[in-house]
Amino acid sequence: MEPCFLTAAAAAAQIRDRKLTCEALVRSCLARIAERDGDVRAWSYVDPAHAIAQARELDKRPATGPLHGLPFGVKDVIDTADMPTTQNSPQYQNHRPAKDAGCVAVVRQSGSVILGKTDTVEFAAGGRKALTRNPHNLAHTPGGSSSGSGAAVADFMVPLAFGTQTGGSQIRPASFNGVYAIKPTWGAVSREGAKLCSAYCDTVGWYGRSVADLKLVAEAFRFRDLAAQQPVSVKGLRVAVCKTPYWDKADASGQKALATAAGRLERAGARVQELELPPKFGGMNHAQRTVMQGEGGPAFLPEALTFGAILHEEFRGMADNKLEITGAMMVESYDLIADCAKTFDSICRDYDVVVAPATPGEAPEGLQSTGDWVFNAMFTALHTPCVAIPCIKGAKGLPVGIQIVGPRYTDARLLAVGAALAPVIDVDGTH
Amino acid sequence: MEPCFLTAAAAAAQIRDRKLTCEALVRSCLARIAERDGDVRAWSYVDPAHAIAQARELDKRPATGPLHGLPFGVKDVIDTADMPTTQNSPQYQNHRPAKDAGCVAVVRQSGSVILGKTDTVEFAAGGRKALTRNPHNLAHTPGGSSSGSGAAVADFMVPLAFGTQTGGSQIRPASFNGVYAIKPTWGAVSREGAKLCSAYCDTVGWYGRSVADLKLVAEAFRFRDLAAQQPVSVKGLRVAVCKTPYWDKADASGQKALATAAGRLERAGARVQELELPPKFGGMNHAQRTVMQGEGGPAFLPEALTFGAILHEEFRGMADNKLEITGAMMVESYDLIADCAKTFDSICRDYDVVVAPATPGEAPEGLQSTGDWVFNAMFTALHTPCVAIPCIKGAKGLPVGIQIVGPRYTDARLLAVGAALAPVIDVDGTH
Repeated sequence: MEPCFLTAAAAAAQIRDRKLTCEALVRSCLARIAERDGDVRAWSYVDPAHAIAQARELDKRPATGPLHGLPFGVKDVIDTADMPTTQNSPQYQNHRPAKDAGCVAVVRQSGSVILGKTDTVEFAAGGRKALTRNPHNLAHTPGGSSSGSGAAVADFMVPLAFGTQTGGSQIRPASFNGVYAIKPTWGAVSREGAKLCSAYCDTVGWYGRSVADLKLVAEAFRFRDLAAQQPVSVKGLRVAVCKTPYWDKADASGQKALATAAGRLERAGARVQELELPPKFGGMNHAQRTVMQGEGGPAFLPEALTFGAILHEEFRGMADNKLEITGAMMVESYDLIADCAKTFDSICRDYDVVVAPATPGEAPEGLQSTGDWVFNAMFTALHTPCVAIPCIKGAKGLPVGIQIVGPRYTDARLLAVGAALAPVIDVDGTH
Repeated sequence: MEPCFLTAAAAAAQIRDRKLTCEALVRSCLARIAERDGDVRAWSYVDPAHAIAQARELDKRPATGPLHGLPFGVKDVIDTADMPTTQNSPQYQNHRPAKDAGCVAVVRQSGSVILGKTDTVEFAAGGRKALTRNPHNLAHTPGGSSSGSGAAVADFMVPLAFGTQTGGSQIRPASFNGVYAIKPTWGAVSREGAKLCSAYCDTVGWYGRSVADLKLVAEAFRFRDLAAQQPVSVKGLRVAVCKTPYWDKADASGQKALATAAGRLERAGARVQELELPPKFGGMNHAQRTVMQGEGGPAFLPEALTFGAILHEEFRGMADNKLEITGAMMVESYDLIADCAKTFDSICRDYDVVVAPATPGEAPEGLQSTGDWVFNAMFTALHTPCVAIPCIKGAKGLPVGIQIVGPRYTDARLLAVGAALAPVIDVDGTH
């Protein structure tokens, strides 16, 4: 098998056992990119010579961290010292940060090769869409805003890649591309050097092709309690299936994904119950949107003042507070979110895990829309960890995933539960 | 009068009326720095030729924004594209960011001259102290971590300067140096390009020598409701004097400052009442510390991995979670803070403004300690706007201020109230 088809965890093991060199893995990824990226267009920047040089250096050294030799893609709203960071904005095409973002520094120091930058929705917040196409069907979006990262991992161009989520930008592309992803607890990963949109919502996460892949990266970030986790048995596991207050937005494929996941878990011996959230959660998406847009004003004011009329109108609109979001609306939203976060954590005590839709269904056709993030916004604002797991192929033959969710700061436990659930939910094991 | 002694508001008016050039103002500030900074050591970087060149360019143009021609100091944890950003860290001595921080871009585009970088506690979070000395008595600290910014504004070296507050780094130096400061509502000013310590607490603010100075900068940041504010009369104003749950930490000078402010307001016709916060607020400082240190782990992990043993042990300690802060402790702290924030806003409905201590008293002797931030941590975590107002000279002849506080997102109203209260509280009008 070509090394690019290995999961990160499998590649790491082969590198550790000296059955695979980092250089061979990088070359395989680069060959895959050369072969496929003319169609998929996941990458905004790759410098093959630089990637190979990094890999050779790593091959000379003993393993320095959990990600030794593993190539990593970086969403192009995240700063890299050795590559441009364009934000997919016409105003940043030649921008070269002086310093790696915090998350990039962590994986680089943990042995990763930064393979390149992946295309993104402009500033991960609006404006221009990525050029990336869904590798399962090029006529469809891969989702956004982490478009390139989701597609690149799905298409075997790189085993791991960073995304970010402010609304639904990490988990939605995972579902649309049939890959795994984690949006960690807010605050558990440094957001320094990733474009600011909403300090309250912005969260750095990553893609992989297995839960073990996601966990490898979590080790690099020293997530709490990782070492203390015991293997989880699906038998008897208390699973809450939560349709969320937005279930009417799920189409037939989205409904089928959740029902299929629930059915598979039940047949595997889990105790599956439906969880209906209290009515106040119905205001969560509106609150998330208010906070995101309201904080987006100050966040895009520097760009609005610096670039004026050439800046995309969506960002000027935020800086101008076109939605007329008042301070009272902000406070009301923060307070509702905080109240629901406390309630959600408390509800979670009765279950081992919450299973929820990741997207309304399959990836829409065309690149004009990156799809609806109605099932993501609430969990972003709640600051809860979410792990996306592929589940079915929908009516159009495209992947649809689900997400598992836990209370804040239980990322390690959620990954342990995910490791048990994934083989049951993702039976086709596309990856 | 030498232009450097003008407040920002007075200088702006003279520049607008063409009685003062930007170049003359900058030259006056530079002369003051040349005269005084050998003693005060507020600045880590000043390039006089560059500052004068910026000023000359501005003198050629019509006013472009509310800060036209006003020199601005920038705390050296905040990125500047045309100057180093050293973080006062041995590991960043030669660091040159490729891009201005969001807050710097806003004031630059609003007409400010970036005069230079001001010394700071390392990363604004621990480690090395600034070399800055209190201009009122060089044997004393100016406070921290915004040491240089507070001292530079106090010593007439620059009319305006950015600071940051994660614990008490904005308001405390204001009190110790006898200047005005605002710590805005969290989220109202972009924190992009300022060193990350705690995303939940980090707040960019600024110093001036009058409330009108603070308001000028707030205009540049387009604070909500500024234009709608009516002049406030002290007569009949409902003032809550809040000793906070930490009143036992106030020394005689600190107690005198609060009592003096209350007495002056009462004599001016305000309806002054004492406000005792509910018992749960007693846990606020502990919660703030837990959140700050707990988020500091992920925030300093990139530095810990990159620099290893040469990084100051305080930051390695955070990255290693030496305080053993658990996820449950984080969640408990966030939930207490959110609960208290809602309560505080609700309490504020019965008053026009809350007056609280800014520091326990005068600036301590020596530079080993930057003083206690016991009266700041709670309000940082609550995300409420705070404005520091000078009040008295303490037992050692050093300034002691107080702070006025309002509910979240009422910064404009707080500045309007502050404009009315300042002449009453700051009768000596040192600035």
